[in-house]
Amino acid sequence: MVHNGIEYGLMQLIAETYDLMKRGLGMDANDLQHVYSRWKRGKMRGYLMDITADIFQKTDLFSSSPLIDRILDRAEQKGTGEWTASEALNLHVPVPTIETAVMMRHLSGNIEERRQAEQCLPAPEPAFVSGTTTFIDQLENALYCGAIIAYSQGMALLHKASQVYDYQLNLASIARIWSGGCIIRAEVLQMIESAFANSTGFANLFLHPTVVEEIVSRQADWRNVIRTAAATGLPVPGLMSTLAYWDAYRSKRLPANLIMAQRDYFGAHTYERIDKEGIFHTQWGSSEEVRQ
Amino acid sequence: MVHNGIEYGLMQLIAETYDLMKRGLGMDANDLQHVYSRWKRGKMRGYLMDITADIFQKTDLFSSSPLIDRILDRAEQKGTGEWTASEALNLHVPVPTIETAVMMRHLSGNIEERRQAEQCLPAPEPAFVSGTTTFIDQLENALYCGAIIAYSQGMALLHKASQVYDYQLNLASIARIWSGGCIIRAEVLQMIESAFANSTGFANLFLHPTVVEEIVSRQADWRNVIRTAAATGLPVPGLMSTLAYWDAYRSKRLPANLIMAQRDYFGAHTYERIDKEGIFHTQWGSSEEVRQ
Repeated sequence: MVHNGIEYGLMQLIAETYDLMKRGLGMDANDLQHVYSRWKRGKMRGYLMDITADIFQKTDLFSSSPLIDRILDRAEQKGTGEWTASEALNLHVPVPTIETAVMMRHLSGNIEERRQAEQCLPAPEPAFVSGTTTFIDQLENALYCGAIIAYSQGMALLHKASQVYDYQLNLASIARIWSGGCIIRAEVLQMIESAFANSTGFANLFLHPTVVEEIVSRQADWRNVIRTAAATGLPVPGLMSTLAYWDAYRSKRLPANLIMAQRDYFGAHTYERIDKEGIFHTQWGSSEEVRQ
Repeated sequence: MVHNGIEYGLMQLIAETYDLMKRGLGMDANDLQHVYSRWKRGKMRGYLMDITADIFQKTDLFSSSPLIDRILDRAEQKGTGEWTASEALNLHVPVPTIETAVMMRHLSGNIEERRQAEQCLPAPEPAFVSGTTTFIDQLENALYCGAIIAYSQGMALLHKASQVYDYQLNLASIARIWSGGCIIRAEVLQMIESAFANSTGFANLFLHPTVVEEIVSRQADWRNVIRTAAATGLPVPGLMSTLAYWDAYRSKRLPANLIMAQRDYFGAHTYERIDKEGIFHTQWGSSEEVRQ
């Protein structure tokens, strides 16, 4: 199930790169086939890149034009991604890349609404991306960062499930098994396997120096892709939710203290402090006295 | 339940504005109290803005410094947000703002991991936001766009639930009831009520001209906030997932055709076409003949 959740995440991220190049750079199936053929020999080497490159070179028998352009953009699903997202909710494990992929399959189903929406909701200016070559290289790095983090979220979910259900999972072995042959097999799994094999106890994948270096050295490109997408109005829900997760994860302090204050204000749900043990409650109304 | 889901979304969005001003602009509780006191009289007028402004002026009895700075940043929950996210998954209704808020409460719980992560995962340059006054105004607009869309997602979920479970809900009445007195009561609900009251049949809230205008006229600011956050490495998962949802929603064509092609490639799951009725399957492997 978690394998399939990761697969949903990776497919969504790849689809976003396609959309950015198609709508943002105006590239056609032939151009895209060249890009994915190059990417499948690079950092993203793996089964999903191989088949993506194949897909863009397939000609439609009916029209003799690229088949990809004739396929309806309503993504279906058999439910394993939903199941992963639902189990992650139960176990309180953040898997935003997977959740977003599931959500986008649902959203893609509203074809008629989207058609109306495009007419009444104007795009921002500029609608196109400039600097094709640089942007494509940035995009490859963004995809690679996103993919590592999609695997990492899946692994964190497996780890938590293993604790809760006493599965005794060995994450290094799982990475090796996935490398052996499955839809998400990819070169990056070797790095993931050795990160887990060399660690004592579990640590989130991106506390491993090798993995960190892979992402940190590419984060500027990833951020640029998102900035460009936000400016041009092209949707990159997977890349954005993954970046936000990464930025939240590396925040020693998050603004959740405000959420705790609000909950205590309207529902007396209490809060903890950073400087004292215990559970506290405040009478927040501005004119009232504070009691703790 | 859906009321509480929207509440989670709004609280997450407000928390992100706090984080951007605190970490991005270096503002303290006193500065923040001034901003929220202004915002609570503006477009965002409502209960949550009122209490947020109150919170920032509360002094801690122990330290005589602002209480907000002493509260632990681990957001707890009683489960209604999770329940909303889970029901939205079941009903296939995209509610990314709510889902993200739930996910961020879970993520905020990993305090020890975040502490380690901040040490080994370097922030991008620049870490600070420039142009304080302009940025704060942009932030108010971004929050307002996000808030409208959070309500809209909740309403879409209620509409779908009403169809599936035959609840016969009147969304205009629900908006009016919420205006009457609850945590998410806010001035914007009047616009939402009249949008639903004036429409025949359901349409997503942001197909209503008044609502569209409110968002479209502010989208440049919203996009700028996200671009700034992405550049400075400050996490805005709620604002980002909401923008990506909006941009996906107003896309007549999404890249889901690639996802359908991939599924058909690896699992013979078939696909539909944009130009012909029926269900199709292709032998994708590049050297094989196409059969449909």
